[in-house]
Amino acid sequence: MSAEPSIFTLIIRGQIPSHKVYEDDHVFALLDINPFSPGHTLVVPKEEAATLDAMSEESAAALGRALPRICRAILAATGVDSYNIVQNNGESAGQTVDHVHFHVIPKHRDGRGLSFSINSSSLSEEDGAEMAERIRSHL
Amino acid sequence: MSAEPSIFTLIIRGQIPSHKVYEDDHVFALLDINPFSPGHTLVVPKEEAATLDAMSEESAAALGRALPRICRAILAATGVDSYNIVQNNGESAGQTVDHVHFHVIPKHRDGRGLSFSINSSSLSEEDGAEMAERIRSHL
Repeated sequence: MSAEPSIFTLIIRGQIPSHKVYEDDHVFALLDINPFSPGHTLVVPKEEAATLDAMSEESAAALGRALPRICRAILAATGVDSYNIVQNNGESAGQTVDHVHFHVIPKHRDGRGLSFSINSSSLSEEDGAEMAERIRSHL
Repeated sequence: MSAEPSIFTLIIRGQIPSHKVYEDDHVFALLDINPFSPGHTLVVPKEEAATLDAMSEESAAALGRALPRICRAILAATGVDSYNIVQNNGESAGQTVDHVHFHVIPKHRDGRGLSFSINSSSLSEEDGAEMAERIRSHL
């Protein structure tokens, strides 16, 4: 968290205009001004956490709770039946504003929406066991 | 939801083995067997909803609540500081298992991780006002 309020905090306070679509005590949702496709929405916690791992449980639970309802409204409004959720943490992961925001990106029939390249490998039994143990040890 | 249990439900029941990293009353997390990068984890609600919009508020809140903690453990285990969250809904959005799953994909310094193409346009004031109103009307 920086000392200056983030652009989302300024939007939530009403100091910068936005196309708001949803608000509750913990969550604010607005249209992305650089949409990947029509209906591209940002779902933002009012808590000004820079990254998902820095969010409080209360704020993260409230954001999770709001998502299905917001997604249903976006589907109804756009008429699409497919969409992607993307949330980026850290500059090298594509994060551009240091305040958590979940992208809801409708996938339109003409292909507009998120495109990502599948670049996966196969997890060996040994690597999987070792990594799972390492993650569990931090939980 | 299909009549047959999903592969994730079979994994949660212990009928198919997995590299489990986390479990609570509502949420189960395991390593992806086709990782984009080391530590690629799937966070799955025990509720067998096909898509995010079909999740109950209780299940979605529990999943949101668990995410920061799981992400912190993945960061600690992998040593990375950037990562992407992706969740796909619908076949044309890249969904391959009809049971909600959130990908947590560490972005490693060598570039391994999620790559997506930025293909955005600019939202006009008129289009934004019209779309926001349409989404709000469904909330």
